[in-house]
Amino acid sequence: MSKIGLGVVGVGTMGKHHAENVRYRIPEAQLVAVADADGDRARRVSSELEVAHYYDSPAGILERKDVQAVVIASPAKFHASHIQACARAGKDILCEKPMALTLEAADAALETVAEAGVILQIGHMRRYDPAYADAKRRIEAGEIGDPIIFKAVGRDPELPAPIYFQSGSNGMLFLDSTIHEFDLARWLMNDEIVEVQSFGTLRGFPELAQYGDLAAGVVNLRFARGGIGNAESFRQATYGYDVRTEIVGSRGTLCIGRMRKTPQLVLTQGGASHQVVEHFLARFAEAYLSELRDFVQTVQKRKIPGVTGQDGRRALAVALAAQRSYQESCPVAVPGDSGRVQKSAP
Amino acid sequence: MSKIGLGVVGVGTMGKHHAENVRYRIPEAQLVAVADADGDRARRVSSELEVAHYYDSPAGILERKDVQAVVIASPAKFHASHIQACARAGKDILCEKPMALTLEAADAALETVAEAGVILQIGHMRRYDPAYADAKRRIEAGEIGDPIIFKAVGRDPELPAPIYFQSGSNGMLFLDSTIHEFDLARWLMNDEIVEVQSFGTLRGFPELAQYGDLAAGVVNLRFARGGIGNAESFRQATYGYDVRTEIVGSRGTLCIGRMRKTPQLVLTQGGASHQVVEHFLARFAEAYLSELRDFVQTVQKRKIPGVTGQDGRRALAVALAAQRSYQESCPVAVPGDSGRVQKSAP
Amino acid sequence: MSKIGLGVVGVGTMGKHHAENVRYRIPEAQLVAVADADGDRARRVSSELEVAHYYDSPAGILERKDVQAVVIASPAKFHASHIQACARAGKDILCEKPMALTLEAADAALETVAEAGVILQIGHMRRYDPAYADAKRRIEAGEIGDPIIFKAVGRDPELPAPIYFQSGSNGMLFLDSTIHEFDLARWLMNDEIVEVQSFGTLRGFPELAQYGDLAAGVVNLRFARGGIGNAESFRQATYGYDVRTEIVGSRGTLCIGRMRKTPQLVLTQGGASHQVVEHFLARFAEAYLSELRDFVQTVQKRKIPGVTGQDGRRALAVALAAQRSYQESCPVAVPGDSGRVQKSAP
Amino acid sequence: MSKIGLGVVGVGTMGKHHAENVRYRIPEAQLVAVADADGDRARRVSSELEVAHYYDSPAGILERKDVQAVVIASPAKFHASHIQACARAGKDILCEKPMALTLEAADAALETVAEAGVILQIGHMRRYDPAYADAKRRIEAGEIGDPIIFKAVGRDPELPAPIYFQSGSNGMLFLDSTIHEFDLARWLMNDEIVEVQSFGTLRGFPELAQYGDLAAGVVNLRFARGGIGNAESFRQATYGYDVRTEIVGSRGTLCIGRMRKTPQLVLTQGGASHQVVEHFLARFAEAYLSELRDFVQTVQKRKIPGVTGQDGRRALAVALAAQRSYQESCPVAVPGDSGRVQKSAP
Repeated sequence: MSKIGLGVVGVGTMGKHHAENVRYRIPEAQLVAVADADGDRARRVSSELEVAHYYDSPAGILERKDVQAVVIASPAKFHASHIQACARAGKDILCEKPMALTLEAADAALETVAEAGVILQIGHMRRYDPAYADAKRRIEAGEIGDPIIFKAVGRDPELPAPIYFQSGSNGMLFLDSTIHEFDLARWLMNDEIVEVQSFGTLRGFPELAQYGDLAAGVVNLRFARGGIGNAESFRQATYGYDVRTEIVGSRGTLCIGRMRKTPQLVLTQGGASHQVVEHFLARFAEAYLSELRDFVQTVQKRKIPGVTGQDGRRALAVALAAQRSYQESCPVAVPGDSGRVQKSAP
Repeated sequence: MSKIGLGVVGVGTMGKHHAENVRYRIPEAQLVAVADADGDRARRVSSELEVAHYYDSPAGILERKDVQAVVIASPAKFHASHIQACARAGKDILCEKPMALTLEAADAALETVAEAGVILQIGHMRRYDPAYADAKRRIEAGEIGDPIIFKAVGRDPELPAPIYFQSGSNGMLFLDSTIHEFDLARWLMNDEIVEVQSFGTLRGFPELAQYGDLAAGVVNLRFARGGIGNAESFRQATYGYDVRTEIVGSRGTLCIGRMRKTPQLVLTQGGASHQVVEHFLARFAEAYLSELRDFVQTVQKRKIPGVTGQDGRRALAVALAAQRSYQESCPVAVPGDSGRVQKSAP
Repeated sequence: MSKIGLGVVGVGTMGKHHAENVRYRIPEAQLVAVADADGDRARRVSSELEVAHYYDSPAGILERKDVQAVVIASPAKFHASHIQACARAGKDILCEKPMALTLEAADAALETVAEAGVILQIGHMRRYDPAYADAKRRIEAGEIGDPIIFKAVGRDPELPAPIYFQSGSNGMLFLDSTIHEFDLARWLMNDEIVEVQSFGTLRGFPELAQYGDLAAGVVNLRFARGGIGNAESFRQATYGYDVRTEIVGSRGTLCIGRMRKTPQLVLTQGGASHQVVEHFLARFAEAYLSELRDFVQTVQKRKIPGVTGQDGRRALAVALAAQRSYQESCPVAVPGDSGRVQKSAP
Repeated sequence: MSKIGLGVVGVGTMGKHHAENVRYRIPEAQLVAVADADGDRARRVSSELEVAHYYDSPAGILERKDVQAVVIASPAKFHASHIQACARAGKDILCEKPMALTLEAADAALETVAEAGVILQIGHMRRYDPAYADAKRRIEAGEIGDPIIFKAVGRDPELPAPIYFQSGSNGMLFLDSTIHEFDLARWLMNDEIVEVQSFGTLRGFPELAQYGDLAAGVVNLRFARGGIGNAESFRQATYGYDVRTEIVGSRGTLCIGRMRKTPQLVLTQGGASHQVVEHFLARFAEAYLSELRDFVQTVQKRKIPGVTGQDGRRALAVALAAQRSYQESCPVAVPGDSGRVQKSAP
């Protein structure tokens, strides 16, 4: 089988990591070109990874006939329009989350993708983590009975640099971070979230007010079939990158989470200690690689993606509802795909 | 110093455990009498523990001059009136949680206690657990900076027997179980909860509807100084008794929780496994003993109790707000001691 | 049933702990008297625990008719002669390990006990720890198949004070500390140790040479039925009291060991940390209590003790062989009860 | 810098894993050819990995001018002669452990390597594992004071297939498996092992007698500077691949070991359980890759290898001494590089 020609749009931390994976670890794909609005960055990455072509906008990549598929890792505010541009150029797409910043933009992007008949996969990579994948398998096998409660913690080690907020990135905790938990919630509970209630706080981080962001948030979830849940996000845990998830069922519970950086315990007069994993690229290295490998196979075999555009749209709908619940101090119903409010079981 | 004469009102599981602690493990106290509406039970316990006197109502205990203090472990619906009866008889009181089922009953009880000038301590025993006590010490020492997020899980291994609900016990998850987390939240965050949002579910346990109870609930918390939080309770985790608490601060996080029944790991072809602690009396054995020991010292030295009636009243106020939030599907402000709604930091 | 009258000989750290257990936590027993060569200490403990009688030698206790049984917690060099004195006075005995410092003394003590027809239990209390007891049960139930390897670590937090060595205590790591592992090895493997090889070191602790002691030792074990093992002891781990044991079987492995002082994890920029249990009385509090409770029941019901004098003698034989192996730099066969060398399976 | 041309000799499980690493994950190297005595296997691997050339003996690789370096992963009995052949052909060498089966063969190989002036690195890959590498760094930084005790457990999940023993592989637990622990012991203690005492057993595995192998072994270690230690190996733990190491120092202890396959805990009525890592290629995936990457850089820059031939020879000397100690039932001094017995500190 001939190699899939791939381009990467946006080569900041995330995009460059994808580019390295394509370049070195996925024999079935060929990294043809990279693009970044910061042309210097595009050049540097292309040089470092020995990529033949680089551009200061997606357009250059989209014109290339030897590029069949594109990984979109630009700032979130460009995701929807970049999806549309790629789709119109007939390229298959792996787009980072969130797929858009509004439901309108998401729907427009989904429509263009449908018209173009290209593949769209959304970057909820946690589904590819071995522990989460095994949890999904156990739940589907009935090992924990009916899922009743979904719980999630997602804590970043420290605030992004100011440039992150200024450069038109997501700008909102629920869309940027908690959206990962919302995707896991839908997927692991095998259910839709129909209503949310959220509290947020700037405590200790008043400077975030200028970006309209939050330091921390807690979101109660209600699922269509009667389950409930909660997702917490925090921007600056200081001790490391801490992602933990629990699915509580009628016959058992699954807990997923890793704190240890390495399997080393240090015992001194102060007690026992170990380092904590520091970065999402360390915790989810295997997930990012499996995600990309699956995307390449999906492109080759014209399969339905592991995480569809619809999945991306639904996680976004929950995130926007959580944001509104925080802003308006009331529970918010999550609109369904039709835009109409969903109903839960009586 | 002469021994404190103690009586125990209600000798079901909880009350009998208190009685055993007084009888065998607190040299400074003397177990003088026990009472239970089930007179047979009172007699059996008095015989088993070699207690001189037993009664089928609190009255018998309250008349005794050699009883200085009473432990109230009757069903929750009697707590407030038993507090009042004890206070009027001039006895110092350790009362199990919740101290009452309504704020009105709680206020009436507090008033009677104040008039009588007796000591009232509420049985939020977790404050006496070594891990929680050490967490409180660390927080006060500033080890984790400003507390920002409070998280709690409280899962019982299995539903109480139908008799529990029928016999006029608490009948409501938030008052019966989550109230422990609300007390911890106030105490560890050193702050007041001013607003709650809750979801509840009967999923998998439709039979609880007849008692007006819930199988599981999640409650978002907002604190006066800007912190946020979430507390989850579940009636039937099946795998054991699982209580975990986290306090996330600006400079660090404390996690408290123990799953292991014994420090034994079993390694077989199926992997690694260990038993989970099964009962709250096992997990909190040391806390119950320390609580009682502290109560006896408080009585001896006429100190302010470690958990005051006001503490019990405030945890109750949060629990009732959580219940109303569930019933009315809206956020509910927690009334302050005055009955007026509390304000949080801007 | 009337209470068993108990005396405690030697009320240093260990003996005082036994005395407290008898005094406060074992309703079936009555603490009648304490004795200590340091008469002041005897008086202080008797006053603190409200014991009626105290003596500066065992003789006073042994003359009392209201003392049926004696706990011996004097320095190890007196154990054997105290056992003999108690036996001659017709008292049942719980004696701390090691039961003697030589096999000759042990045999003499066993003979006197047999002639007197009293009960002798040796203080290998770990058999009463819930985790070890459960491990024994699992092994006997065949859960791990045939036991093949026994592994043990026993580390004390810090060197005993010089007075410990000077006052004629055990003076030797293998007899003082590793003997606990030898008893566990025999009991959990359900087999006899027939040969040992040991290395010892003074590294970092040259001052121990004057007492003929070691800072650390490792002892290879060979069992009669073909199993093998290793036991390590260390005098000054600095980080806490660390006792871990593994039994590796043909179908599974059991690991016993607890490090955590409380179930609290502290997460800060330095990583995750927790305190380590600091003292053997904290780690084995439950075991010491169960041991004493079982001893009292054994006395009441004239049962065979949970740890017999023969058990104590065999553990001693292994410890002495380990010491000789260290001194003579060669493997040493462990003599059987007859004094003859034991054989292992071909 | 131009790519290093690499050949792999022996493409069983281990060799194929190396070949894949070279092929896909080390951009600085080019996999030019593979060889295997089983020519079909060589052909299959070359086809699967798209390698241009394959051979049924090392000779074909050694003749190629485009091969600068060779990875030797043939059965252990060929290691020494393959090292010599590669050296004579002027190729740099990464050879799996043990580097030889006798000290004579090892010395001959070292001599040929020295004459040829090629690089020889031995495959003690654990030094490249992040947890072990961090432990080494901490020890050298003095974090645990003077290292006093070295402890190691190495358990394989199940016996190799009979073919492994029959095809002239190592045939001996200490050379095949415990040698990893001996290398770690020397490296982490920064000291030489001067004497060993070992016990071995066939318990439960009598069929291993025909291969002269053992099911399990324990080896006491004595170090030149006074430290002591113990290493255990077991062929069939059933529950997984379990490698744990401890270095006990005068001021602290380091424990390295990972059991969890994924960060997932399963909680059911039976308690808490998790899967255990199953294979050494899973546990040490990162170490094998770093090892190979370091080897390629060593070849490029003509550095001293991270694990020298002398290191391989010394670990072998300890393994052979452990084997003799088992066979002759006595402590065995480890010969130094000169062949003379080493001395330890008084």
